[in-house]
Amino acid sequence: MPKAIKKIGVLTSGGDSPGMNAAIRSVVRTCAYHNVECVGIYRGYEGLIEGDFQLLDARSVRGIINKGGTMLKSARSKEFREKEGRQKAFRKLSEASIDALVIIGGDGSFTGAMIFNEEFDFPVIGIPGTIDNDIVGTSNTLGFDTALNTVVDAIDKIRDTASSHNRLFFVEVMGRDVGHIALNVGIAGGAEEILIPEEDLGLDRLVESLNRSRKSGKTSSIVVVAEGDKIGKNIFELKDYVDQNMEGYDVRVSVLGHMQRGGPPSCFDRVLASRMGVKAVESLLEGKTNYMVGLMNGAMELTPLEMAIKGKTKINLELLRVSDIMST
Amino acid sequence: MPKAIKKIGVLTSGGDSPGMNAAIRSVVRTCAYHNVECVGIYRGYEGLIEGDFQLLDARSVRGIINKGGTMLKSARSKEFREKEGRQKAFRKLSEASIDALVIIGGDGSFTGAMIFNEEFDFPVIGIPGTIDNDIVGTSNTLGFDTALNTVVDAIDKIRDTASSHNRLFFVEVMGRDVGHIALNVGIAGGAEEILIPEEDLGLDRLVESLNRSRKSGKTSSIVVVAEGDKIGKNIFELKDYVDQNMEGYDVRVSVLGHMQRGGPPSCFDRVLASRMGVKAVESLLEGKTNYMVGLMNGAMELTPLEMAIKGKTKINLELLRVSDIMST
Amino acid sequence: MPKAIKKIGVLTSGGDSPGMNAAIRSVVRTCAYHNVECVGIYRGYEGLIEGDFQLLDARSVRGIINKGGTMLKSARSKEFREKEGRQKAFRKLSEASIDALVIIGGDGSFTGAMIFNEEFDFPVIGIPGTIDNDIVGTSNTLGFDTALNTVVDAIDKIRDTASSHNRLFFVEVMGRDVGHIALNVGIAGGAEEILIPEEDLGLDRLVESLNRSRKSGKTSSIVVVAEGDKIGKNIFELKDYVDQNMEGYDVRVSVLGHMQRGGPPSCFDRVLASRMGVKAVESLLEGKTNYMVGLMNGAMELTPLEMAIKGKTKINLELLRVSDIMST
Amino acid sequence: MPKAIKKIGVLTSGGDSPGMNAAIRSVVRTCAYHNVECVGIYRGYEGLIEGDFQLLDARSVRGIINKGGTMLKSARSKEFREKEGRQKAFRKLSEASIDALVIIGGDGSFTGAMIFNEEFDFPVIGIPGTIDNDIVGTSNTLGFDTALNTVVDAIDKIRDTASSHNRLFFVEVMGRDVGHIALNVGIAGGAEEILIPEEDLGLDRLVESLNRSRKSGKTSSIVVVAEGDKIGKNIFELKDYVDQNMEGYDVRVSVLGHMQRGGPPSCFDRVLASRMGVKAVESLLEGKTNYMVGLMNGAMELTPLEMAIKGKTKINLELLRVSDIMST
Repeated sequence: MPKAIKKIGVLTSGGDSPGMNAAIRSVVRTCAYHNVECVGIYRGYEGLIEGDFQLLDARSVRGIINKGGTMLKSARSKEFREKEGRQKAFRKLSEASIDALVIIGGDGSFTGAMIFNEEFDFPVIGIPGTIDNDIVGTSNTLGFDTALNTVVDAIDKIRDTASSHNRLFFVEVMGRDVGHIALNVGIAGGAEEILIPEEDLGLDRLVESLNRSRKSGKTSSIVVVAEGDKIGKNIFELKDYVDQNMEGYDVRVSVLGHMQRGGPPSCFDRVLASRMGVKAVESLLEGKTNYMVGLMNGAMELTPLEMAIKGKTKINLELLRVSDIMST
Repeated sequence: MPKAIKKIGVLTSGGDSPGMNAAIRSVVRTCAYHNVECVGIYRGYEGLIEGDFQLLDARSVRGIINKGGTMLKSARSKEFREKEGRQKAFRKLSEASIDALVIIGGDGSFTGAMIFNEEFDFPVIGIPGTIDNDIVGTSNTLGFDTALNTVVDAIDKIRDTASSHNRLFFVEVMGRDVGHIALNVGIAGGAEEILIPEEDLGLDRLVESLNRSRKSGKTSSIVVVAEGDKIGKNIFELKDYVDQNMEGYDVRVSVLGHMQRGGPPSCFDRVLASRMGVKAVESLLEGKTNYMVGLMNGAMELTPLEMAIKGKTKINLELLRVSDIMST
Repeated sequence: MPKAIKKIGVLTSGGDSPGMNAAIRSVVRTCAYHNVECVGIYRGYEGLIEGDFQLLDARSVRGIINKGGTMLKSARSKEFREKEGRQKAFRKLSEASIDALVIIGGDGSFTGAMIFNEEFDFPVIGIPGTIDNDIVGTSNTLGFDTALNTVVDAIDKIRDTASSHNRLFFVEVMGRDVGHIALNVGIAGGAEEILIPEEDLGLDRLVESLNRSRKSGKTSSIVVVAEGDKIGKNIFELKDYVDQNMEGYDVRVSVLGHMQRGGPPSCFDRVLASRMGVKAVESLLEGKTNYMVGLMNGAMELTPLEMAIKGKTKINLELLRVSDIMST
Repeated sequence: MPKAIKKIGVLTSGGDSPGMNAAIRSVVRTCAYHNVECVGIYRGYEGLIEGDFQLLDARSVRGIINKGGTMLKSARSKEFREKEGRQKAFRKLSEASIDALVIIGGDGSFTGAMIFNEEFDFPVIGIPGTIDNDIVGTSNTLGFDTALNTVVDAIDKIRDTASSHNRLFFVEVMGRDVGHIALNVGIAGGAEEILIPEEDLGLDRLVESLNRSRKSGKTSSIVVVAEGDKIGKNIFELKDYVDQNMEGYDVRVSVLGHMQRGGPPSCFDRVLASRMGVKAVESLLEGKTNYMVGLMNGAMELTPLEMAIKGKTKINLELLRVSDIMST
């Protein structure tokens, strides 16, 4: 029979995403609701190794549900990748009488959590916090919905100036391995083309398609490019190629960058974070470990961490088709 | 064998919602993609009866994906409730050689569509456009997600002034029959209590709960109230009751009203609208009729109109519980 | 020669407004820059009387420049209106060795500050913080610009639904005594009519004007009404009158309420707050007292409190004329 | 005696800015108010040379006051720089019986307007439309206020992620020749340093200042860099230098780019545009020519185009000082 859980630690790890604070708040309040102590661990696994802990009660997470970023800060930790680092972490947890961990982060963070669980039989539950929406076991990662709205708002603004000047804009959005952000904002932003890592359109076909769109009477265009797209070595080379191979377009580049990670979370992400925090804590209290909480068909479900980190979620092919039809 | 469909009409009906324009755009462009003509029908069933039609091509819906409201305008029509009105409508459709209709609206509009289909064997497909999210057969109605963000943004602002003055705010949000908006924005806005039509907390328990929250150290509070809540006859009576039965609170009321229906649709609603428009047109082209398109477990699905209008979707009880835990 | 100032207190009083936090931050950091101690006084004059003080250093105001509301909270104090209350306040200030006060608030707060200065020869400087922009001696009060943007955003949303349904909306905005908000948002929101306390259009002329606008082909209209407008006893009566005396309009009312006070301050208000905080502290250090800082022709200027509280700023008649021409 | 003005042309030229549409609307409606015809000229001086004209009435500018960009489109014209091009333009104006021009644009556009006026004695009035706020004769150019809010919103988002990760961000904002945007958003965004073209801080002092800020306990920093800043050859070199010469910072770059030009104009810019349009048209009707309208000390004033294009407006030194004090 597993030891009763009296004290739960919570940390955020990897790139931050909107909704992480709302998830921390939910973890803390669910602990309070169940009369379990909750400890905030600063700077991810780094703070775990250093014992950078602080007891959190229901009041200490007031006013953070609508704040971007993470009050616990986040970091990447080389030391935690080594056995020795993880041993230090385990020692710190034992000293602080922490019985279980909630890890808010992406697949890298979950891999660490899984190894830690295996080595020390320490209860862990993951909450998927990343704007990339690339984690198996949940239809939405925390922050994805917010990032989509942030990017679409930026594209709307760029559209204003593009259509005032008959320009072609390449807009780079986040997504190193997967095109979820690009595909959604491309449709929502009315992009003429969407370039994603999963599909290599090829430069010739891109130019051909832009020429066709031009001839059909469009005088300005937006092409959404995922960071990890393979079509050019980078977005500036893409611009140069089009500049040299197309006439009559004034081509510009906009790299949206880190603003995509910030801002107040959307309603959806706040509610999702609140649900995930409850599910994570209550799963630990029920003796579950080594799972990730996720949203599946509208309900909170558990997925083994091992499955969550295996591969990336696939692009929805229906969306690709919708995008093609919309740019008719 | 059904007649081949060469020309599709599209109209918006009932209360407007963000995403209706994106859905119109999608219907028009999907028609263009399939070389089918598309006719915009103004002012819902009223314009249908009057023959207020306009041919729409792919270019005529440029620049509307990010606009709130509906370019086709909407109206409620008494005449269409009468057999005679519907006969006029059928005549106008025949004269204009329109073979099928896409109806964007709520359950009232769908009831009309279903009767019209039955009487004249006229192909119809519905797209659920309403901020209330109360239609069976789709996890999200068009505009619901946008409205949630609009309301949460307003609550965040009210929270600023509430916590600067130690005030208790009753914030009324839309939702005459169902509490979906109230429940989600209540969680996302960090409300202390959420009053919905589905649950009658009772005035005594409300006051008791607010007193408890006060004693626990909270100096300001927000109570989200759905329009259709039964606890008081209206929100101003609620305020009066609390004024008379609680001490130390400065109680205020804010009725958010019609701004909840407007604004640029969220990324989610734009993508959903685009998907629904494709599905609606292609379903008609496949000979389907009398269905509503919906989002079910992440995919586009058809639900018979008859089922869509039968009853309202239920509150997610998990969310009620999350709300309770969060206001710990 | 006045006593050298070693410690300055800062408080916010009256209704809160966006930019108050930015002003507090500026007061605190300017004190730090000049090696003067700074004490935050909670809940306005009430906290002053109770000695609810906290030492603030440059770090303690991190992350507040973009927050609405006031971290020092605000209140109205009956006790401070009595001599006895003010004596208590003076005692608390003496005990805490506070040498001077910065008062962030509106004309009511300044009246209190002026009397306090006269009775105890205690140095005070005011910073005009109110969304109403009704204070003589500054072209902009703190929060006015932010409130204008908040209201215009709401009107844009209401316009979406108004024009989808051919409706007439009465939108009530803040401004009990002056029409500055109404006049500006009316022009910016493209309102057909603007009703302000300074001008009584009369119900007949309102109806006449709306009828004219209707005949000229406008199918939806927005009328912006300042809270303090005298044309109807209140906005709901206005609606009833128009309902009974005009045909063909579906008339609705929207009272924007307290959300107008909240939200992150605009860039303008943050810069203004930063400038005012510097000017307030440096004026005290130069031995000035009983002044309000203000923005006059683009520069920071001092106005005697006595003048600042005498009367309200006048409506800009040029704007009234622009509004008339725009609703042509 | 000058010829009576019966028909006025309006065009937008140079980079677009939020508020241009509101200014077009105001020009059109003021013409309608005075029973003068108004002609929209597409694509700036290029459309002027080509005779790309369209008659605009009060209704044709409905629904544009809140749209970014310019419905008349904008362009830069090489041909108009040649005498021959200007002669073509004059011919087109004569053929269309246009008696006067309103030019909405920046100093380049005004130079063209002035030369045109001198060569053909053709009445012109300029409206300053550019986000850079660098034009003499007005305290605000159209779009400046909106751009400030757009940039500050982006910096707030970047701040979320910066402070979650203890990062140093260089954020590049528009402003090739002048630092107005950088200086204002730097203060409003709580930047640790602001690099502007007018002041060369020097790389050594920048590093020194960042080190000082680090030692004082700040764990994340934002440095706002105007496009035209001279400190590095560009912002990426700046990053490299700091990477090589500072320890313990994770340095990132964000180039905000063209989204700064778009979006719905702020309330301030909409009101300013409305006022400027009225003033421009009425000045032409009064026989004035070769002036720019501007906001001076809160009122609409005329400045000879010759003065408006001579030099750029100076940085407000008070703001530089406020910025220094705030980053204490």
